[in-house]
Amino acid sequence: MIEPGQLLMLVSPDQKKYFVSADPEGTLNTHDGTLSIGTAMQEGFGARISTHKDKKYLVLKPGLYDFIKSIKRSTQILYPKEIGYIAVKLGIGPGRRIIEAGSGSGSLTTALAWFAGETGRVFTYERREDFYNLCARNLERCGLQSRVEQNLHDIEQGFLHQNSDALFLDVRTPSPCLKHIPEAVIPGSPVGFLLPTTNQVQELLYGLEAGPFGETEVMEILIRRYKPVPDRFRPEDRMVAHTGFLVFTRCISD
Amino acid sequence: MIEPGQLLMLVSPDQKKYFVSADPEGTLNTHDGTLSIGTAMQEGFGARISTHKDKKYLVLKPGLYDFIKSIKRSTQILYPKEIGYIAVKLGIGPGRRIIEAGSGSGSLTTALAWFAGETGRVFTYERREDFYNLCARNLERCGLQSRVEQNLHDIEQGFLHQNSDALFLDVRTPSPCLKHIPEAVIPGSPVGFLLPTTNQVQELLYGLEAGPFGETEVMEILIRRYKPVPDRFRPEDRMVAHTGFLVFTRCISD
Amino acid sequence: MIEPGQLLMLVSPDQKKYFVSADPEGTLNTHDGTLSIGTAMQEGFGARISTHKDKKYLVLKPGLYDFIKSIKRSTQILYPKEIGYIAVKLGIGPGRRIIEAGSGSGSLTTALAWFAGETGRVFTYERREDFYNLCARNLERCGLQSRVEQNLHDIEQGFLHQNSDALFLDVRTPSPCLKHIPEAVIPGSPVGFLLPTTNQVQELLYGLEAGPFGETEVMEILIRRYKPVPDRFRPEDRMVAHTGFLVFTRCISD
Amino acid sequence: MIEPGQLLMLVSPDQKKYFVSADPEGTLNTHDGTLSIGTAMQEGFGARISTHKDKKYLVLKPGLYDFIKSIKRSTQILYPKEIGYIAVKLGIGPGRRIIEAGSGSGSLTTALAWFAGETGRVFTYERREDFYNLCARNLERCGLQSRVEQNLHDIEQGFLHQNSDALFLDVRTPSPCLKHIPEAVIPGSPVGFLLPTTNQVQELLYGLEAGPFGETEVMEILIRRYKPVPDRFRPEDRMVAHTGFLVFTRCISD
Repeated sequence: MIEPGQLLMLVSPDQKKYFVSADPEGTLNTHDGTLSIGTAMQEGFGARISTHKDKKYLVLKPGLYDFIKSIKRSTQILYPKEIGYIAVKLGIGPGRRIIEAGSGSGSLTTALAWFAGETGRVFTYERREDFYNLCARNLERCGLQSRVEQNLHDIEQGFLHQNSDALFLDVRTPSPCLKHIPEAVIPGSPVGFLLPTTNQVQELLYGLEAGPFGETEVMEILIRRYKPVPDRFRPEDRMVAHTGFLVFTRCISD
Repeated sequence: MIEPGQLLMLVSPDQKKYFVSADPEGTLNTHDGTLSIGTAMQEGFGARISTHKDKKYLVLKPGLYDFIKSIKRSTQILYPKEIGYIAVKLGIGPGRRIIEAGSGSGSLTTALAWFAGETGRVFTYERREDFYNLCARNLERCGLQSRVEQNLHDIEQGFLHQNSDALFLDVRTPSPCLKHIPEAVIPGSPVGFLLPTTNQVQELLYGLEAGPFGETEVMEILIRRYKPVPDRFRPEDRMVAHTGFLVFTRCISD
Repeated sequence: MIEPGQLLMLVSPDQKKYFVSADPEGTLNTHDGTLSIGTAMQEGFGARISTHKDKKYLVLKPGLYDFIKSIKRSTQILYPKEIGYIAVKLGIGPGRRIIEAGSGSGSLTTALAWFAGETGRVFTYERREDFYNLCARNLERCGLQSRVEQNLHDIEQGFLHQNSDALFLDVRTPSPCLKHIPEAVIPGSPVGFLLPTTNQVQELLYGLEAGPFGETEVMEILIRRYKPVPDRFRPEDRMVAHTGFLVFTRCISD
Repeated sequence: MIEPGQLLMLVSPDQKKYFVSADPEGTLNTHDGTLSIGTAMQEGFGARISTHKDKKYLVLKPGLYDFIKSIKRSTQILYPKEIGYIAVKLGIGPGRRIIEAGSGSGSLTTALAWFAGETGRVFTYERREDFYNLCARNLERCGLQSRVEQNLHDIEQGFLHQNSDALFLDVRTPSPCLKHIPEAVIPGSPVGFLLPTTNQVQELLYGLEAGPFGETEVMEILIRRYKPVPDRFRPEDRMVAHTGFLVFTRCISD
């Protein structure tokens, strides 16, 4: 039995994924016909239920990976390999308050909200209205909008929140924002950045050297996939070679 | 002001790290002399407080990365690069129930407990008493023991819990345990494995093909670090080339 | 002035490449019109000469990389990143005698012949007539056929030559051929293999352990390309992740 | 039977390697006692011969890899993974004329001389006398000095040779030398560079954009080694992550 209000993921025969909130009276219209959400709730996770055209849909309990994969994007998004490492490195978890900019399509926002939980809070900044709206739609699809405060605001003017436990910037030129960070975070908090080019990293490192930052690290995360064939086990022929450089530092007050 | 009961991290001049629970009457004895925890609480995060021998200790709010780095280990442990990806891929988050085996030194257990929060629950299995005890000590240091149920039990005999949202196995020979997984997880749940050798992956893939599993993926995660020097920016000379292969699948009931 | 008999490479405006032997009376018919080889010889390398339709062709002195890139292929071929390492590791150079199987499209054959020079010799084996002919055509295009002896022969029946300085096998199942290697090489000579899957490498390693081989090494070579843009310097987005595993050993007689 | 004048490699029980020219009257003094070179010549490659103290030495025919591994170094040297790719990319082979700077310890010089053969020629430049002498000693040990012309000369003053088929620079600041390259190579020839940092690559790319160069490429070559154990086949735990960036271009005359 699935409880009312829980989020379900319904997977079509051709792997299309729908997120719906559990409502005993609800229905979902698909290109394969109409589904009864009440039936899905009674049958439970793992069940296969039929549309009125007798197409079978799988009922699953969605998780963060499903959400990220379903993000509607109009920007380069952060991927699970970076998102997972950022979560560990910045200590994102239940009850934590995190500042992030720019919102972009909201893939990192979604992850931060997922990990922060109902007791935490994500403050996301975006200066472009189209991205602000796209991020809002993506959060709403995943049922995570209540954990996030969206701000249509240029952070070069400063942040609007204080005392965050961590801060992450995915913006083209982070250097002009560095001076605002100490007022936005609890002293000693971890701060992260994503940057696509070595030139941007070099410029950021000059900015961080001017302080008040320390324990700076730079890295890339690579994922190498294998064909899951046991008698011809070998890596995939091609791989993603670059999404961006991650920079982590700690904001040290004097 | 730091609230009573919060966890603090105190960092010595030589970067030794202590985790302590905030107690206004408490003290910490270090090789640099005695510290007053009450003073640390009054000064707050980011402050530098003095031992009675006038050595300065930095007061920080610890996060998951700090915990993992401080794990006392007597086994090969899971590292942040794998832990972060596992968290995203298995959908670990507040309120989730996760089964894990073996506990080992408890680095993944710590991370699962961190992300599951007070509303979630981690069920960890270990058949060796020394590792069971080591995992307990590591959880206690990080203040996370209340979120975890430890089981001194060989999972080849089956799991003792049902309805988990995800399951992760870091054991030498996972194949004999595969038949017990469907009874332990909510149908459709993600399941992960870590294995050091290609032979073990091949054997596991044969086991997974026998079902009831699907959407199997195999991958490695590599982290490449750079020297954070802006005018001579270049990768580190050496890197970790292998910790293990990650295998992810979904347990599909029939 | 280019000497008669030298090989020229003529590059069209759309980067199509032609190899021709320098003949003062010769002509080349292209889709851009006819070129006079005598004019190319007089103008020399680096010149741009015109077809009768007034299209400009660049005259270059071709090298091994140009040859490999121009191989007509109907098989997976060896790439420059592996070829270069094989040449160093097996000590391919002027005057050396090298055995190779199978010929395939002839990309490694071309390289071995290039490095062995007029004083060396390459003995290449192939059991399929279509590949034998394809390899012959590719060698002829590059003017290297006089350095190579092609054999239409299955090496599971043994090799037809002795006293080679090095031996390389790019065949699906090298194990049945191992017993023939000691009779084919000078004692102590380096031997190499290319294999796409981990299962094949495992099987070969078992075979090599049975002897008489030693100093066995296994490796992969990865090439990571960067966008050559100085103010946005960054790796390419995608890369080739796998062509095959290289295995090197030394054939030790007792 | 080994011919007089051939180079032998004698390998001690503890894997120390000696290169000696085959002289029927010659002897080699080792820490294990004296060896007769005449005996080695009679017994031939692959044989194990005894010192007067009855220690067994293995007689092998050395190749380029053995030479590079034995280089006495007082600088960062080029490694086989880069050397092999450079040889392919620059078309180094019998009869080719190659310019190189700086000589350094002579590892690339050795490889260029190996591949160029008796009919080719290597012109190597070095401005420091200590490296000039070290390179000379390393070439002599490998019997390759007759193929190389060493120049104690700063290439910022220009090159002393023309009409080379290829040119490679392993110097800290190649940009001031770029203007001299067109006079040193046959028009259209390939040119390569090795540089350790991204900043140096960026600066070089600006220089190359000023011309007359084209078809510029930047890359790194990574080698990932595996433990050659068939029933626990897996990558090595650690690897070399960076030696340098390779830049290749073509010198196009106008």
